[in-house]
Amino acid sequence: MTAPAHVRRTARCARWEGVGEPFTVVEVPLPGSLAPGEVLVEVELATVCGSDLHTTTGGRPAPAPSVLGHEQVGRVLAVGPGDPPDHLGGAPVEPGTRVVWSVAASCWSCARCRAGMPQKCLQLRKYGHERWTEEHPLRGGFATHCVLMPGTAIASVPEAIPAEVAAPASCATATVAAAIEAAGPIGPDTRALVSGAGMLGLTAVAMLDAAGARVVAVDPDPLRREQAARFGAAESSAPGSAIGEVDVALELSGAPRAVQSCVDSLTVGGTAVLAGSVSPGPGARLDPERLVRGLHRVVGVHNYHPRHLRAAVDFLAEHHRTRPFAELVGGRHGLDDLETAFSAARLGTSPRQALAP
Amino acid sequence: MTAPAHVRRTARCARWEGVGEPFTVVEVPLPGSLAPGEVLVEVELATVCGSDLHTTTGGRPAPAPSVLGHEQVGRVLAVGPGDPPDHLGGAPVEPGTRVVWSVAASCWSCARCRAGMPQKCLQLRKYGHERWTEEHPLRGGFATHCVLMPGTAIASVPEAIPAEVAAPASCATATVAAAIEAAGPIGPDTRALVSGAGMLGLTAVAMLDAAGARVVAVDPDPLRREQAARFGAAESSAPGSAIGEVDVALELSGAPRAVQSCVDSLTVGGTAVLAGSVSPGPGARLDPERLVRGLHRVVGVHNYHPRHLRAAVDFLAEHHRTRPFAELVGGRHGLDDLETAFSAARLGTSPRQALAP
Repeated sequence: MTAPAHVRRTARCARWEGVGEPFTVVEVPLPGSLAPGEVLVEVELATVCGSDLHTTTGGRPAPAPSVLGHEQVGRVLAVGPGDPPDHLGGAPVEPGTRVVWSVAASCWSCARCRAGMPQKCLQLRKYGHERWTEEHPLRGGFATHCVLMPGTAIASVPEAIPAEVAAPASCATATVAAAIEAAGPIGPDTRALVSGAGMLGLTAVAMLDAAGARVVAVDPDPLRREQAARFGAAESSAPGSAIGEVDVALELSGAPRAVQSCVDSLTVGGTAVLAGSVSPGPGARLDPERLVRGLHRVVGVHNYHPRHLRAAVDFLAEHHRTRPFAELVGGRHGLDDLETAFSAARLGTSPRQALAP
Repeated sequence: MTAPAHVRRTARCARWEGVGEPFTVVEVPLPGSLAPGEVLVEVELATVCGSDLHTTTGGRPAPAPSVLGHEQVGRVLAVGPGDPPDHLGGAPVEPGTRVVWSVAASCWSCARCRAGMPQKCLQLRKYGHERWTEEHPLRGGFATHCVLMPGTAIASVPEAIPAEVAAPASCATATVAAAIEAAGPIGPDTRALVSGAGMLGLTAVAMLDAAGARVVAVDPDPLRREQAARFGAAESSAPGSAIGEVDVALELSGAPRAVQSCVDSLTVGGTAVLAGSVSPGPGARLDPERLVRGLHRVVGVHNYHPRHLRAAVDFLAEHHRTRPFAELVGGRHGLDDLETAFSAARLGTSPRQALAP
């Protein structure tokens, strides 16, 4: 372990105690040594994702107690012994490197990892979603420090990207990068529907517009539609309006009717990517003849591969000055004010609230 | 035009006069000259496809009169002036070459052709599906000769392939090649469901088994299931039986319940290719959360690209001796007995009936 001498010896984390319980900020010792593959990171800023809210309201089964949070940017303090972590084509992951990391750690040896689906690893461990123990107290973003598990994808982050823009890279931005890859080639001939103009949808609007597509954003909220225009949408529309046929439809809202609209809006050869439906719903109707004759594709995307994390950071590095990503993060709260941050996040006036531990 | 001197000066074709009408065999002059891109072929053998039956019963809207038939093998008699047809990586298309050709002719310049979907060309013309005129009387397989339209994909056929094995290449075999390509990489780790063990299904069983997959064939008919085993299926099952999860599901029957089973049987990362649903049906239910969390893909395939025609012929050339393709074609009938051939085809004891004009 190559930690510089001046590092703190303790960390603080906001422990979630269960549905309906307040957070408890606890002080824990920093690990005296790291195992091979582990990386100690000091958290610079974390953002509250919709699935964190879901967990606290019981909408998403989760172990308790735990440290929530899986969208954050931080700086490497120490790297465990053995081979250094894969830098994914970015800067080396070493003490001092500013980084974001994947929402989960994969084993990289099971059948699913070998099949190119590390996000579905049979031994998957998710940040912000592991039971808190005295031995492993730092596995979520709502803390001063995080101990990254072996098999975590880690991407270096240029210093120029504001922390509130970089933090969502590891969930929202990387998932959108995966969804756009799944949609197939995007170019000036692509007319793309983005369903839902929240954190993921606005990111998708920006990425698709940057790739040359003509983007139609659909959201019930007029303010979000206006925001979509500033992210690059050429058209925007309320759900249920006639928008014509599209080559690509990205469903990021999870609304059952929106799923149906995406599938129904495809032109010949079109692809619908569903990424928003992560809770049970009434289902959509598939017309097999239309799918067959239309050469349609309907593709599910959940989480992402390490290459999408790298692509997410690279995209933000190139475009954060020209697209208003920073305005997607509302208030900035301290670790002791996590409850306030969650209350603000539930109001939904901004897609994200920030936590600066 | 480079026709040899000994060719006949007239052709005979079985003209379909409309739903409920008998075929009329008419003699027509062979074209005195060919236009650029046209190819004159003498038909060696044609097979009756399910969609021909559909047309004659009114289940598929079609112009009348017309010459039906789009599965056939023949020999080039003459090639029109200008650039020779693309040989698709096979032998040159010239007088004497034994060939099969695509079900349709494409313009190769419209947006869809340029997007790699010539089967959805905006100016598509389909063999066996064009109105009969005195000017263009030979645009279907149930004739002694066929005049191939410019923009038709033409694949040379080795002499060793029996005619009854080669004829279905241009519809059944090529469509299955497209469906398997759409399913993604196939290998020894692939467990594949083939839904429907008719002409397309048995071909799919053979192709998937040859690619190393472990194939489960599902069909209500025990004789077809037994036939599937001889084509390479490792398991077979009646619809509704529990078959476990599969990596790939190919739906080739068109039965609505089978579509649902294919979508529901996918394992994480699995792909369902639908190719059988070419008439209106009640639809299938899509569970968006299952699709998203499972990283599933549902892909529609209809007809194919020229590369799939070449792949179809290459597959048959390599495997026709070891897989019982020849037994899929029942009786062999003359042009004057087309009515008998259709009656036998309707009985369905064999997937195909042959016509040797």
